[in-house]
Amino acid sequence: MNSKNSSTNLITPGGFLFSTKEAAIKKPGRKDILLIYSQHEAIISGMFTKNKVKAAPVKLDMQRIRTGKGQAIIVNSGNANACTGMQGMRDALEMTTLVARGLNLAEDKVYVCSTGVIGTPMPMERIRIKIPELVEGLGKSTPYDATAAIMTTDTFPKVVTRRIKIGSKTGTLLGICKGAGMVCPHMATMLCFIMTDLKIGKIALDKAMKDAVKNSFNRITIDGDMSTNDTVLIMANGMAENEPIRKDTASFKRFSSALSDMTYELGRLIVKDGEGATKLVEIVVRNARNERDAYKAAFTIANSPLVKTALYGNDVNWGRIMAALGSSGITIKETKIDIYFGKVKVVKSGISHQKDMEAANIIREKELTITVDLHLGTSSSRILTCDLTEDYIRINAEYRT
Amino acid sequence: MNSKNSSTNLITPGGFLFSTKEAAIKKPGRKDILLIYSQHEAIISGMFTKNKVKAAPVKLDMQRIRTGKGQAIIVNSGNANACTGMQGMRDALEMTTLVARGLNLAEDKVYVCSTGVIGTPMPMERIRIKIPELVEGLGKSTPYDATAAIMTTDTFPKVVTRRIKIGSKTGTLLGICKGAGMVCPHMATMLCFIMTDLKIGKIALDKAMKDAVKNSFNRITIDGDMSTNDTVLIMANGMAENEPIRKDTASFKRFSSALSDMTYELGRLIVKDGEGATKLVEIVVRNARNERDAYKAAFTIANSPLVKTALYGNDVNWGRIMAALGSSGITIKETKIDIYFGKVKVVKSGISHQKDMEAANIIREKELTITVDLHLGTSSSRILTCDLTEDYIRINAEYRT
Repeated sequence: MNSKNSSTNLITPGGFLFSTKEAAIKKPGRKDILLIYSQHEAIISGMFTKNKVKAAPVKLDMQRIRTGKGQAIIVNSGNANACTGMQGMRDALEMTTLVARGLNLAEDKVYVCSTGVIGTPMPMERIRIKIPELVEGLGKSTPYDATAAIMTTDTFPKVVTRRIKIGSKTGTLLGICKGAGMVCPHMATMLCFIMTDLKIGKIALDKAMKDAVKNSFNRITIDGDMSTNDTVLIMANGMAENEPIRKDTASFKRFSSALSDMTYELGRLIVKDGEGATKLVEIVVRNARNERDAYKAAFTIANSPLVKTALYGNDVNWGRIMAALGSSGITIKETKIDIYFGKVKVVKSGISHQKDMEAANIIREKELTITVDLHLGTSSSRILTCDLTEDYIRINAEYRT
Repeated sequence: MNSKNSSTNLITPGGFLFSTKEAAIKKPGRKDILLIYSQHEAIISGMFTKNKVKAAPVKLDMQRIRTGKGQAIIVNSGNANACTGMQGMRDALEMTTLVARGLNLAEDKVYVCSTGVIGTPMPMERIRIKIPELVEGLGKSTPYDATAAIMTTDTFPKVVTRRIKIGSKTGTLLGICKGAGMVCPHMATMLCFIMTDLKIGKIALDKAMKDAVKNSFNRITIDGDMSTNDTVLIMANGMAENEPIRKDTASFKRFSSALSDMTYELGRLIVKDGEGATKLVEIVVRNARNERDAYKAAFTIANSPLVKTALYGNDVNWGRIMAALGSSGITIKETKIDIYFGKVKVVKSGISHQKDMEAANIIREKELTITVDLHLGTSSSRILTCDLTEDYIRINAEYRT
């Protein structure tokens, strides 16, 4: 497996099965549909794109998630089924109907996600016939196979697991996701599926999920664009037979923390694999007047094409960071600003600290942190971003062709 | 003159002289300082960057412009004199002091503008000695020479003139500017100097200028970044000896319209010459609920890296326009949206109109208009943008080196 984060012995949570097939949705040559199935009905929680143009599968899932229950997810890559009108809605529905029929489930227990090109009708003639095969193949694919099937311009599959003990029982969390481009908060163009065999109440699951997304997928950016299809779904099937996790308990804290940790790691992998990216950069803004200011400043810096191209060019061009900061709309006092590349202070009190040469060694690293200290308050925020490269342009100028 | 908009017989407004010299500010080999001088004291009006991090010359000019009078502008390229602290302020001041001394002017009649790298002290030892030469050379440089001296990554000088008749007198407007990158509203990274020999009152000049900038430089974008140095200055020296133009008169309307027209043309040239740009694209959003929505939607589309890379790749990827629209935060109704490339309707009522092949001929053109019709109201807005190319990355990854 050509993966930057493969681990050979993945632990899969109890009762979850995967199946992947090739439906040649965009073009032939790779598996592009995935079925995730839980042998027991699961509690399900989800978060969806804030884009007002939502893909058909997103609209459908947003309705179904109100039941709080789920047992299967069908996912395709190569076509987003967005801006496809009534036919798109019928296609999304049909995909879930066929899965429900094959698995003998109530239709509203089946969810559907799509990623790929916007505005092209789904090639249902090729998808339809593959669904019985998908059902048939359950259990024959690994989580890596699952992730590979939902990749678009991703260059490696993103899989993260965590094990936690709740009482005398040990449960597993498995998260898989795809990202790559059109990645920005609320959320990345990303699909993320998290499966756990832990038993947890719906309210607790919703809360843990919301916190996890806030501190991970809403803190990453690749190009500032927001997708029509972003979806995060978590299914908890209870097969670990632990005492159910309730909100505001010690076991909830452990679960929530493991989930946040996992989604942060998944978010990190998404940015690391950003389209054309050569480096992963954490932007930290600290001592802002309030959290909103810190977040806004960090995002403006993280999204600035000039900052991102300077990162690519290994140019300690902190002037562009100052310019982005000044344009972010937040309160600043120029003469109080310090900027660090790693631990090297390049700006002291708003002007050069004559350390650009030292910082040049930091900026060449594959992962680095840039810290902006505003010295105005006590609030902090951090955002993960990547550099902007010629490959980003090439990938996106040629995406549809 | 290797210029896309050169005209051999430029009419210069009466009483304005130019001088350019080489001070080797960033590197030797080109003229990089400019002096603009009006033989008569002029009424002056200015607009400056909204960035909270302002270059020293911007801070100085913002103080001086309160007098409403001016007679000379010294400009340098290669160094922005931004984030340079107290020394930067002293350097900006010294530049005006030396010009004032050479021209025997009150110091507060002299303005200073800088463009280039942020955070590096001004090489005053090289600039200082060139100022007497600049003064000496007045009248020996053309408006094209003037523009060439303030270029950074611009590939051609941007000069526009207009002649208008006020009563029995004919006056001239001459505008020169530089742009290229870090261009976004409020305003582009741009310096723009407009000179006219028309006689006009300060209140009228301010009003005409504000309207002109609103409809030109605040409606262009290259990369969404906002500079620390943006400045637009207009000097009117009255040497045409016309009846003074007052606000709310017919001659004001003519003046204002000529000025707006000129700044729009200059803005167009800036975007056309955007860093790495291969095409100029006008984004029109019409029938929005209100002007704010129209403007916001047009800007979100115009700034989307995915839209801009698709334009570069000649890919009629209207799905990315829909996605940008949906993420702009304005009110939309997906099923009411129509999108046109030129006159070809590619989206009808939110879904494909099956005209991508026809639109492919439009997108290959060097200049095109994309129109989004929201069918929700009567407000419109238009923004000029360009495509995002590998050359943008190359230019900006290597800018300082």
